Formats: sequence, C-alpha cells, structure tokens
Amino acid sequence: MLKPGATVGILGGGQLARMLATAGARLGLKSHVFSPVADDPAFDVCAARTCADFLDEAALAAFAESVDVVTYEFENVPARTAEVLEAHRPVRPNPKVLALTQDRLIEKQFMRGLGVATADFVDVCDVDSLARAVARLGRPAILKTRRFGYDGKGQARIGEGVDLTQALASLGAVPAILEGFVPFSKEVSVVAARGLDGDFRAYDICENVHEHHILATTIAPAAIADETAQAAIDMTRRIAEAADYVGVIAVEMFVVPEAQGERLIVNEIAPRVHNSGHWTLDGAVTSQFEQHMRAIAGMPLGATRRHGSQVVMRNLIGADADKWAEILADDGACLHLYGKKESRPGRKMGHVTRVFP
Amino acid sequence: MLKPGATVGILGGGQLARMLATAGARLGLKSHVFSPVADDPAFDVCAARTCADFLDEAALAAFAESVDVVTYEFENVPARTAEVLEAHRPVRPNPKVLALTQDRLIEKQFMRGLGVATADFVDVCDVDSLARAVARLGRPAILKTRRFGYDGKGQARIGEGVDLTQALASLGAVPAILEGFVPFSKEVSVVAARGLDGDFRAYDICENVHEHHILATTIAPAAIADETAQAAIDMTRRIAEAADYVGVIAVEMFVVPEAQGERLIVNEIAPRVHNSGHWTLDGAVTSQFEQHMRAIAGMPLGATRRHGSQVVMRNLIGADADKWAEILADDGACLHLYGKKESRPGRKMGHVTRVFP
Repeated sequence: MLKPGATVGILGGGQLARMLATAGARLGLKSHVFSPVADDPAFDVCAARTCADFLDEAALAAFAESVDVVTYEFENVPARTAEVLEAHRPVRPNPKVLALTQDRLIEKQFMRGLGVATADFVDVCDVDSLARAVARLGRPAILKTRRFGYDGKGQARIGEGVDLTQALASLGAVPAILEGFVPFSKEVSVVAARGLDGDFRAYDICENVHEHHILATTIAPAAIADETAQAAIDMTRRIAEAADYVGVIAVEMFVVPEAQGERLIVNEIAPRVHNSGHWTLDGAVTSQFEQHMRAIAGMPLGATRRHGSQVVMRNLIGADADKWAEILADDGACLHLYGKKESRPGRKMGHVTRVFP
Repeated sequence: MLKPGATVGILGGGQLARMLATAGARLGLKSHVFSPVADDPAFDVCAARTCADFLDEAALAAFAESVDVVTYEFENVPARTAEVLEAHRPVRPNPKVLALTQDRLIEKQFMRGLGVATADFVDVCDVDSLARAVARLGRPAILKTRRFGYDGKGQARIGEGVDLTQALASLGAVPAILEGFVPFSKEVSVVAARGLDGDFRAYDICENVHEHHILATTIAPAAIADETAQAAIDMTRRIAEAADYVGVIAVEMFVVPEAQGERLIVNEIAPRVHNSGHWTLDGAVTSQFEQHMRAIAGMPLGATRRHGSQVVMRNLIGADADKWAEILADDGACLHLYGKKESRPGRKMGHVTRVFP
C-alpha cells in the first residue's frame, strides 16, 4: 500500500487527470502529470509536470522513476508507452486491459468468452466481408472502427439503402466490426472499482442520455429493476476479475425490454474513471476519482453510498459552458469547469451536478 | 465578476490554502500560492507558486500583478503585506478586517459597538492594570494576549491563588486583555459567507468540542434551539455587514444556559475558512472552500444545504494521522490528509468526516 506523501503518475492531462489529481490530494498523495499538451488542465493542480510526447522514451523513464505508481486517464495509451513505464513502476490498471479495450473486436471476443452478452458482431476488413456481415446481421446495423472510436466518432449506421463501399470509406478504410442493431430502451452504465486486494464495489447503476453521440445527462440511480441492476453489477465484476483489474472501471450497457423483464447487452468497457461517474463527486460518499486513486495506491476502497434520492449530472459541451454565471446562480447546482482554454463544438468543458434531497 | 480561467492569489500555503486551491479548480479558477515555506502543502495543487517572505515587497508586487484577486488563509497577515498587495489588486476579505481580528481588544470593542454580546473584558498592560481587572471581573478569568493567539496559545487562566505577575510573564509581558469567565455549556460556530453583492448565506450552526485547546470534533447541526441558531446567524450577518466583509467568515460562540433558554456570547471572529467548516467538503452542497472562492471572485454564493441527518468531523492531530490506513478501511469515513511532511504533537495533519444518512 502506498503511503500518504507518495506520488501517482498520471498519463494524460485532461479533465479526468485533473479530477484524479485533486482527489489524490485529499488522500495526501501527490500527482505527477505527463501530457504532450502544454496547457492541459491537469497541469494546474499537480505537484509535478512532464510535458513530452507519449513516445518519448527518455521522458517516460524519468517520469516513471519519479513516481510510485502510474495510471492513465484514457485507454488509447500506446502499447510501447505502457511497456516502457512498466519496466520501472507498476502501471494500474494493468496494460493488458489497454490492449483489450483499444480494439472493439478483441473487447467483444473477451466478453463473449466470459459469457457476457454483447451485440452480435462480425469482423470487417473490406467491402466483401462487410457485405457478408450485413447479410448475416441484417439492416440496420452499426459499422465501427476497431480502434480509436469515441463520442460517436468512427461509426456509420448501415440503414436501408446505405452504400457499403461509401460507408466503409467514411471510416477511412481501417479494420472495423459490424454490430447488429440492439433495440434498447435505455443506456446505463456501471461505474465500479476493484482494489489491489480484489475487493469490488459498484456505485448505483446510472442511466445515460446521449445527444449527438456525446453523453449529455446521467441520472443516478437508473430506473431499472433490482434484478437488472444486480445482473449489471455481476457482469462488471466478472469483467474486472477476468482482467485482473485494479482501479475504477466503467461498463456501458444497453437495456433491452423483453416480454418478461429486461435484458442487458454490454456495449463498451472503459478502463478508467468515466464521464457517467462524475455525479459521484458531489453525490456519493467517495468520488470515483478518489476511489480510483485508492485502488491504484493499494488502499482500501471507499463507501459508494449515494447522497440524496437522486443525482443528475449534465455535461457542458462547447458553448454550454458559456452559461457558467447562470449556472452558478442556480441554487443547488454544483458547477465543475475543467479549465480548458479553448471552447470547441463537441468539446467537454465542464459539468453540472444536482443532488436531490 | 471574475471569469473562469482567472487566477486567485492565496497568501499562505497550509491546508486551508490547499483546500481553497482545489475548490477553485472546480470552478475553473487557477491558484497562485504565496508562502515563505518551500514544502508547504498548497504548493502541490496550484498552478503557480511564489516562495518568498511576507515582507518581500518586490515578490508581493510581482505576485499581485500575476493574479486577479488576492485572499488569505490566515488572519495574521502583516498590515504592510496587505497594503502592498492592495496597491495592485483587490484583497478580499478587505484588510480592515485583518486589523480587527488581529487584536482581541479591537475585535471585542467592534462587537460591543454592534451590540453583539461578548465576555466582559478589560484592557491589560501591566500587573497593576491586571490586578484592577481581576478585582473587577473576579476569578476565574482568562488572560489572553491581544495578538497572535491561536489553539489556546497566549492564554493563562487566572484561577484562585494564581500569581498575577507570573501569569502575565507567562504570556511574555505583551499587551493583553482579561476576559470574564463564561459558564458555557457548548461551543458553537457559524460558518457563513457574504458575497460581493451583499448576499449572505450561513451553513448549519455546528457544535465544536475542543481537546487541549485545539478543535477535536465538529458536529453539524448543533443541538441548540432554533431561536438560538437564528440569533447566531443574525449576529454573524451583522458582523459581516459592519465589516463590509466578502468571503467566508467564521464566528465562534459560547452557548450559556439560562433559566429560560440559551444566551450566546461571541468568542472570536476568523476572517477566513475555518476548521469548524471542514465538514462542508463532504457534507454540504457547496463546500466552505468553494463558497469562499465564489465570494472573493464576485460570483454568486452556492447552496449551503447539508447532506444527511448529521455530519461529524474529527481532526487528526499529530500522531492521529498515523492511523490513516485504519481510517481508509472504515466504511463511510471520508479521510482528508493535508500532505504535511512532518508530524508534530498539536499539528493538524488531516481530518475525517462522516455523513450520516
């Protein structure tokens, strides 16, 4: 177990790194942020900074030597980066998880292997294989790049009449998978943590509403049956245990209504703190950020109990954040701004949480 | 109103500055910490640092020029320091408040002028005036230095048989006041904030238990009558308005039981965030630290509503903090460690909060 005063190295300098660093400070942990972007927001709240490329091996080695454990705020950490860091210090969650979550095909095969339900999927490498995949899964279906997709990027909907050559070209002719259509009624996520000792704790399942493929609103708890919630937590635990996971993990799922009850389909695993867990900063005894720092430091996990009857988190995307003064004046609204210099459409600039008594 | 992205200058680098800086980051504010102590804990969580003496006028001027507003984490800011800073940027709370709270005699005269009840007091400058004061207020009474007293330092109890010459010498023969004995049943405090627009908001009155003259435990809300709580808040508002106060203020009071009801005696004013408000970090919608940053930035004040039925904060003094692992494993305990390198008896190393549902 790391002791207070130890230093956590964080790869990435965005809002997740920023909130991890301030949560670590509560526990007496120092943060050393590594990011290639000089004005990244996490640099404003950390004890030490390295501004270098993720493939700068000398900088990575010096960074790793200066910290006690390394974690990351994003799953697209290059494999070589993780390898260099691991030669010096523990990297948590372990980099095998990165390989798993960087590729939708490998991720889905992993889940299938665990008996965790996913959408039907077929590997796609060219137009011929896409045509065969569409013949098998039917339309509509969703074509997704295997790697580097987020917030709806790297996706194309294969509806009736969509030209397959064009659809594949729109993704950049990279390896892809076709996913069968899931007639879901709700999107939910499980944000949970697994400690170094194997202890596992989940927050209340929350319901997520996306707009333009970007998370807009999270409501905790989700309005789902108790058995569905328990099944979602069990799936997440199974995934975390199989991956020998340490840290906060988020698993996005679709809820599919059935004649009797609800069925869950896992969409995606995020090996990190997650936007749908931001409500825990104001709405739970231990925030997901502190929970992650506890886990990777080998400390016991904290209580996940929710404050209030319901917690609602709304993202501030692009110009939404220009309304900060209005939000500050809104009684009971908890405003979080990420300190990003430049606002762009689709860019996450902050969020607002409201805890209902 | 400052905009997100603005920089707040904080004088002092201790735990209060540290928690102010991280609270400011939530609002998108940067912090620049000024402290003469190189390894002060607030340096670990701020965007900019100045390590210089509080009387280094060149450093103060450069610091002030680099920020948008200046605040402080302690009331013993030298008058000259405040004067230099004020020539460049607004200092909030305004430095007149410092003069008021640095001297117990002036503080008590100010409160008396407002009709706020205090203990009886007499100015003491030598043994003769002390003898006259004791003759007037009776024994027991408390002899206190006018300046630089905290956590029971600079105090002597004048009980039966206590030698007045020795008592005065024990304080270092500095200007003092004698305070009449107050037969209180409880110590409470009001932590409140006043905005730049005059808006005033108080947290629940809390009850404080001291051990060895240092705050040990705070319980919110205090078990006092509603009228007493309202009177305490009214007194605090009167003090804040009279001082044209901007920021978080804490007013410590004694509750004196009477034949009918309770009477309040104000003990001390702290022109800053206060240890008895630490529970708000985990137990209120807006923490006292964010509230202070909102106020001095000219932003609207946040909601002060408490989470749960009761919140209990316990200080970790000296070796108490060595039990951090045990506290982390205590389900529902929220641990805060201040990142101080060295533990000393009587030194505040952290605190633990528990929110009861």
